[in-house]
Amino acid sequence: MAGVFLYLCFMQKETQIIGIRAIMEAIQAGTAIDKVFIQKNTQGELMNALLKLLKQKSINFSYVPFEKINKLSQGNHQGAVASISPISFVTLEELVESVLEHKETPLFLILDQLSDARNFGAIIRTASCTGVDGIIIQKHGAAPVNADTVKTSAGAVFQVPIVKVDHIKDAVYYLQASGIQIIAATEKASQTFYELDLKPAIALIMGSEDRGINPTVLKIIDQTAKLPMQGEIASLNVSVACGAMLYEVVRQRLS
Amino acid sequence: MAGVFLYLCFMQKETQIIGIRAIMEAIQAGTAIDKVFIQKNTQGELMNALLKLLKQKSINFSYVPFEKINKLSQGNHQGAVASISPISFVTLEELVESVLEHKETPLFLILDQLSDARNFGAIIRTASCTGVDGIIIQKHGAAPVNADTVKTSAGAVFQVPIVKVDHIKDAVYYLQASGIQIIAATEKASQTFYELDLKPAIALIMGSEDRGINPTVLKIIDQTAKLPMQGEIASLNVSVACGAMLYEVVRQRLS
Repeated sequence: MAGVFLYLCFMQKETQIIGIRAIMEAIQAGTAIDKVFIQKNTQGELMNALLKLLKQKSINFSYVPFEKINKLSQGNHQGAVASISPISFVTLEELVESVLEHKETPLFLILDQLSDARNFGAIIRTASCTGVDGIIIQKHGAAPVNADTVKTSAGAVFQVPIVKVDHIKDAVYYLQASGIQIIAATEKASQTFYELDLKPAIALIMGSEDRGINPTVLKIIDQTAKLPMQGEIASLNVSVACGAMLYEVVRQRLS
Repeated sequence: MAGVFLYLCFMQKETQIIGIRAIMEAIQAGTAIDKVFIQKNTQGELMNALLKLLKQKSINFSYVPFEKINKLSQGNHQGAVASISPISFVTLEELVESVLEHKETPLFLILDQLSDARNFGAIIRTASCTGVDGIIIQKHGAAPVNADTVKTSAGAVFQVPIVKVDHIKDAVYYLQASGIQIIAATEKASQTFYELDLKPAIALIMGSEDRGINPTVLKIIDQTAKLPMQGEIASLNVSVACGAMLYEVVRQRLS
């Protein structure tokens, strides 16, 4: 844990890139950018060039008011501040290829726009403990991979490969083409997780805290399943639900 | 959820009792006090009477510096501020008796000094979804049942009976005498949770985030079990671990 703590201290100082030119140079140099904050109503040639580059490289960005960007950075930010991801990402192709090389029945986890960094961290930690071979998230709308994520993951963020894709749908198609069955966790499923055979190569897909899995994604997956629910609340924290499901995979594969 | 939100708004105004006399009167009237904050180095006859009453009724209290108690309350607090619990508690005897009346194989959850309110809330929520018949916590050293707990529990705190006991050990003895087997979740166990028969009447006991289960409690329980662990992190968030274990109980009882 001491290593992680030191890393976090280091990170909190070093995770920002300030100013349009600096951000563009970092992108060109291949730095893993987590997100770029752009000041609302900022214009100019340089800003247009940055926006073009962000779209071209599918880098997550959002427009924020002047006050927020000032809070993020005291320096001369010229209307743009980027946060660097503390981890480096692999591509989906690299991940699937390298995993399938040494494992016949991999276990992947797809997170469809999960938005809470603490939930994301807890899920990465669980993924590490349950032998998940890789986590796939969408570039836009996903929880950031920031210091909070690193902390709640207890450092697991450095152990489990994470892939950022443009669209979850494309990842689903790619995984299916690679012989991996996609199982969606949804309360609307008719069968429980315990009725499924989870021993083959699978990817489990979990939705966001509020909206669940995107309906267009739900249409193309192979199976849906739910956890049995009692009581009046009948909804679990997403990291708890994910843990219960991943451990059912572990149980079946052990027995 | 609207109901819960309104309740929280109401709570944030009404959850404090300020001043020594007011706190003593509330205790005498049977109000469920969550915790009392006492200003360090405060003396006097009235304060002594309060302290005596707190010990007599086993109410959780802690000494805090002047600055903290001032932050807690702007009024004339005389060195004492109490937070009221948003829920009312039952006694262990009431809980066990009422549950055993209609259920042969109850499922209880004991939390041994879990300290994080968000974890506690997530666990209460999971307990509701998995049909836990009651949660037993220790008065001292446990996470508070406050607005944070209510929020992360998604309101489940009002659905699952919660018992506060003086000592977890005594609760273990009482449950055992009532025919309930106590199973401790600990990484030091030699068998996994999947090797146990979880269909009989059981109470699952989980330890605190940092120290696990108290060694004196571990000595008197019936069985220990762990979740299988892979990877270098090899430790789960406590609410995730609790969810995976409770769902194994659900799975076994469904099959």
